[in-house]
Amino acid sequence: MSDERDIFCKIIDGEMPSDKVYEDDDVYAFNDINPAAPTHILVIPKEHIASLWEAEENQAELLGKLMLRARDIAKEAGLEEDGFRLVLNTGAGVGQSVFHIHLHVIGGRDLSWPPG
Amino acid sequence: MSDERDIFCKIIDGEMPSDKVYEDDDVYAFNDINPAAPTHILVIPKEHIASLWEAEENQAELLGKLMLRARDIAKEAGLEEDGFRLVLNTGAGVGQSVFHIHLHVIGGRDLSWPPG
Repeated sequence: MSDERDIFCKIIDGEMPSDKVYEDDDVYAFNDINPAAPTHILVIPKEHIASLWEAEENQAELLGKLMLRARDIAKEAGLEEDGFRLVLNTGAGVGQSVFHIHLHVIGGRDLSWPPG
Repeated sequence: MSDERDIFCKIIDGEMPSDKVYEDDDVYAFNDINPAAPTHILVIPKEHIASLWEAEENQAELLGKLMLRARDIAKEAGLEEDGFRLVLNTGAGVGQSVFHIHLHVIGGRDLSWPPG
């Protein structure tokens, strides 16, 4: 599935619009169009990985960079004091709707437990 | 804060009990004592990292390995078909209660949205 071009591949390539908040050589981030909180940003790898099921061992550093950039983006969004929740859905059954790995950065309001 | 010994450091070192489900040179995983779902496993680095705020750039690969091992553990727990949710709380304000990075692997029941 690694050569599929999904909606997030098209966003990265500028073929679909997005409200971009960050971009580097490996990572792209944009505001979720259906925000679940005052801050709700999706952080995705530019390389197509359908889901965590498909991620390969040699992509560990890339996955870690997603987390570090998500952290930087959360800080930039003013969440350093209140914190943030990082969520990754893997599989349609738990709510993954686009099959291109995306970390949800969620914050800016009270967050309850359990997380769904 | 990187030299603090928290409760998870003590679990890793065997000074505190845990219901272990996985261990390798870098990663330790155990069942959450207050499960939020039929499967609720915490995946932690053996190296002490207080939270994602404190994670360093050279720990990217370790963070990625946490995600890959969380995926393997979810598969081993029988969640390949139904999927699972990975959650990382960063900061006391969003529910981080132990200041040693821990990924929550959650699955085995319907999970609603938003995630808290």
